[in-house]
Amino acid sequence: MASANEQSVEQTTGVFTESFTESTIARIVGIGCEFHRRGWALGTSGNFSAVIARNPLRLAITSSGLDKGALAPEQILTVDEQGAVIDGQGRPSDETKLHLAVVRRRDAGAVLHTHSVWSTILSEMHAERGGFEIAGYEMLKGLSGVRTHRHRERLPVLANSQDMTALAAEVETTLDAYPEAHGFLLAGHGLYTWGRDLDEARRHVEILEFLLEVVGRTTAGVRKS
Amino acid sequence: MASANEQSVEQTTGVFTESFTESTIARIVGIGCEFHRRGWALGTSGNFSAVIARNPLRLAITSSGLDKGALAPEQILTVDEQGAVIDGQGRPSDETKLHLAVVRRRDAGAVLHTHSVWSTILSEMHAERGGFEIAGYEMLKGLSGVRTHRHRERLPVLANSQDMTALAAEVETTLDAYPEAHGFLLAGHGLYTWGRDLDEARRHVEILEFLLEVVGRTTAGVRKS
Amino acid sequence: MASANEQSVEQTTGVFTESFTESTIARIVGIGCEFHRRGWALGTSGNFSAVIARNPLRLAITSSGLDKGALAPEQILTVDEQGAVIDGQGRPSDETKLHLAVVRRRDAGAVLHTHSVWSTILSEMHAERGGFEIAGYEMLKGLSGVRTHRHRERLPVLANSQDMTALAAEVETTLDAYPEAHGFLLAGHGLYTWGRDLDEARRHVEILEFLLEVVGRTTAGVRKS
Amino acid sequence: MASANEQSVEQTTGVFTESFTESTIARIVGIGCEFHRRGWALGTSGNFSAVIARNPLRLAITSSGLDKGALAPEQILTVDEQGAVIDGQGRPSDETKLHLAVVRRRDAGAVLHTHSVWSTILSEMHAERGGFEIAGYEMLKGLSGVRTHRHRERLPVLANSQDMTALAAEVETTLDAYPEAHGFLLAGHGLYTWGRDLDEARRHVEILEFLLEVVGRTTAGVRKS
Repeated sequence: MASANEQSVEQTTGVFTESFTESTIARIVGIGCEFHRRGWALGTSGNFSAVIARNPLRLAITSSGLDKGALAPEQILTVDEQGAVIDGQGRPSDETKLHLAVVRRRDAGAVLHTHSVWSTILSEMHAERGGFEIAGYEMLKGLSGVRTHRHRERLPVLANSQDMTALAAEVETTLDAYPEAHGFLLAGHGLYTWGRDLDEARRHVEILEFLLEVVGRTTAGVRKS
Repeated sequence: MASANEQSVEQTTGVFTESFTESTIARIVGIGCEFHRRGWALGTSGNFSAVIARNPLRLAITSSGLDKGALAPEQILTVDEQGAVIDGQGRPSDETKLHLAVVRRRDAGAVLHTHSVWSTILSEMHAERGGFEIAGYEMLKGLSGVRTHRHRERLPVLANSQDMTALAAEVETTLDAYPEAHGFLLAGHGLYTWGRDLDEARRHVEILEFLLEVVGRTTAGVRKS
Repeated sequence: MASANEQSVEQTTGVFTESFTESTIARIVGIGCEFHRRGWALGTSGNFSAVIARNPLRLAITSSGLDKGALAPEQILTVDEQGAVIDGQGRPSDETKLHLAVVRRRDAGAVLHTHSVWSTILSEMHAERGGFEIAGYEMLKGLSGVRTHRHRERLPVLANSQDMTALAAEVETTLDAYPEAHGFLLAGHGLYTWGRDLDEARRHVEILEFLLEVVGRTTAGVRKS
Repeated sequence: MASANEQSVEQTTGVFTESFTESTIARIVGIGCEFHRRGWALGTSGNFSAVIARNPLRLAITSSGLDKGALAPEQILTVDEQGAVIDGQGRPSDETKLHLAVVRRRDAGAVLHTHSVWSTILSEMHAERGGFEIAGYEMLKGLSGVRTHRHRERLPVLANSQDMTALAAEVETTLDAYPEAHGFLLAGHGLYTWGRDLDEARRHVEILEFLLEVVGRTTAGVRKS
């Protein structure tokens, strides 16, 4: 497992060793297994990525259409800043463009995309309004840079689309419009969040999924069927 | 574990080796254990089957009345196209006829039948209308052949019955009437879904159960008690 | 693990070997661990028992006040038909009298008592009416002797009490009044069910808890707080 | 694992061996892993402490900002009665003051603080009233000293704050005002409970979380979104 420390040092120096790449890939495999078990990456849903080099950019990312609960290391591809495959076999997910947009706009070291029951429900519920706020919870303090439960976290919701080029552009616009946001939702689809490394991104998933469940259980009313 | 690849090759050539049969049986045992843990095959509920030969048809299927969380390989029977036992000890489930109907109508390589809380609730709720639609969710793209979240998945609901011959005929009629359907529900009973092999059928269970939970949590109102 | 077969043979002959006692105790320990994990025996809640001899009656039963997720074999006591300890250290649960009442009235080989969220909620909700029916679900067929989903299972609810002698008498009256019942609830407390052996009793817990969740999610409305 | 017995003996004599300290730290690590898995200590939430000496007071407590699902023994600090670090590396949690307040006021041997979905929801719901009662449930008997389900457990709710000195004073006032209380909630934040040792405190978490789920599912209505 790549410790936060190890990754930080390597990001500072800009030197990424082969062992760092291997441990990052192993960590992505582990996150896939864990998130599948926790119901956040069922079917073939979910994509997970981490930066393994900065100049030029190299991103390790899960390949498309796989059971995330049973990934093999060779199913984690390395792509460049255009999303072209540099290493590994298989097709990168169409959503690679969204991961790259987040890496660019947030200088993120890792991006995690999950599909949970509560993110699906709440993203549908707030799609028309373009988002909603989560405020007043102690758990918000687990988000990077947040120091008080009085924090108001705006969670933007974007319309879902199969046109990934257009969607990536919208993601960039949204991230610029909400520079404080730690994540966003795609309507009827799921959550994107990120962090300076996989540990921080994973913590953000845990925290946002917890808060989505709290908000969902108290505000997601029964619709007409 | 029978990989999707291995099974596809053997289906193409029509030659099914003994090792394929053994790995298929081991995979059914594993699915039983997993589905029990996930609450989809409690008590003695659930039946799981996979085609192990096509000409003549040979179907491996769980025998009746067992705890699906603790199956032994010898409790997986081989039946012919009439449901008569060719190999193994024990009584095939009465629902074998439904599995055979699905195999015939969908040319399926595997059929999985589960009883979950949400499939039970929603099947009761929509029994009179004969079914309902699930539409607009990204997760639908995990269903075989679906390419967009705009897909509308019609999930037929059949009245439950203990007359399996009549029910099998109704299943065939329903499958013909809804050629695009990836599954159906029996009212107050559970879900049937399938795939070209066990991996695909298992993925369909995960996806449909996820969607049933989403729909259930937002539309299943509190009834008069 | 004591197989159903092994136990049946021994019950017929009336001869219970020491190895049967040991395997029964091991099975109770395993059920404690499993039921704790599944949320059915939290804190020190839950009691589990199994008949290890008939003439005279010897019942193996969990001792009082223990974490059921971490039982040791020596914490399973042997009591006689009055509930007096024959073997093992520790105090038998006050509820031993209820276990003995069930064994007497139902000729049960095992009795399992659990405290789940849904049994607690539904038992409170239906306490005044003295019970409720669960009908129309396929899962009912997993209850011993039930052959169709059209079965109507009456689940009696008794007022809770700390006077175990009085409560045991009420349990006997209730079991006589509802000779078909496979279980009963104590209000605000939990479920009692049983079977001819531990396997059957465990199956009854799974089935009744599943059905209580289905009924709870569709009928347990939000009360005034 | 430090057994309740072992700890009691040592508390009586006032002599705490090094092996007791080590086993206590190992037990805190184990509780962190378990509570993370059960959803009670996600992100970096939750703090866990246990008294390892009385004169002078020495408290073992989790250090700040860590993933509680993957603690290492060296991340458990020893602090004195002022919260100053005596042993170990890292910063003690700001909430150490609250742990020390509980130890002082309740003569507790262990204090556990968790953040669950239901404690978050109910604490928000009852914040204005300053608390609520849980009454009539058999499960209450698992709380230390409670002998009947007729017990009424008052669960105070305090406003959340980032000023830990002020909050610790309020905790002391609250504990004095409700001398029978087995726990309290911080609004939008989580549960504090305690016990004479870690086993009892852990049991109190299980019991209170169970009861919060029961109360939450029956009283936590859908708010305006």
